[in-house]
Amino acid sequence: MTEVCTVNYIDHVGVAVKDIEASLAFFKKVFDVPDAQIELLEDQGVRATLIEVGQTRLELLEPTGPESGVGRFIERRGEGLHHLAFNVTDISGKLQTLRTLGVDLIDQTPREGLSGAIAFVHPRSVFGILTELVESNPKS
Amino acid sequence: MTEVCTVNYIDHVGVAVKDIEASLAFFKKVFDVPDAQIELLEDQGVRATLIEVGQTRLELLEPTGPESGVGRFIERRGEGLHHLAFNVTDISGKLQTLRTLGVDLIDQTPREGLSGAIAFVHPRSVFGILTELVESNPKS
Repeated sequence: MTEVCTVNYIDHVGVAVKDIEASLAFFKKVFDVPDAQIELLEDQGVRATLIEVGQTRLELLEPTGPESGVGRFIERRGEGLHHLAFNVTDISGKLQTLRTLGVDLIDQTPREGLSGAIAFVHPRSVFGILTELVESNPKS
Repeated sequence: MTEVCTVNYIDHVGVAVKDIEASLAFFKKVFDVPDAQIELLEDQGVRATLIEVGQTRLELLEPTGPESGVGRFIERRGEGLHHLAFNVTDISGKLQTLRTLGVDLIDQTPREGLSGAIAFVHPRSVFGILTELVESNPKS
């Protein structure tokens, strides 16, 4: 077990939006980002897309309903920056390290996300940042 | 003049914190990021530091007082994700392009930031994201 949760790079920045088609179209038109596929993640209550921007990605998240986590976020705070994801190696070991260091986890074990195994860390442990760890699936 | 505001990569993600020394120490201890220098930016009302994480950076911002922009942000929303910065080439041309595209700018012309020329775009034009453009200083 490592004694620190070394992060490789910023995997993506998550953004809560009300209309994922409109926001994806805006980023393509205004900021010249590549097209990206929108996927339904029913268990997370969102439609989501990952837009490549250099080494990292922008993840747009549209809630499937007002009761989902992202729906409540928009209700409370409006659209905008939602979470920050770090790419890591050995996500299970990293979660164990974070527990040892006294960091509060939302997900005690990894679950399947848009591009690999993911787990969320509680914002109260990271200066208000809803923090996600991502272990990417091997590229095929 | 280009017709799109092409972005090169995510330059940094800005985070509002109450105690920059404590938060920098936490990121070093827990996430194994390199050390970074804290600088006072009096005109922006913050002490700030840029932590290298892969291609992009985390920018920690501690307000110098409650009346600064970041101070009011923390008062209203608490600590957490504050802004998203894209690296661009020819920032002045890009601002002109954004105006042409009907995007609301906070800064009509670039000003000096921590690592180059910067300008902020109004969050109401970018789905609630306080968006910054950065044109890096040439590396010496």
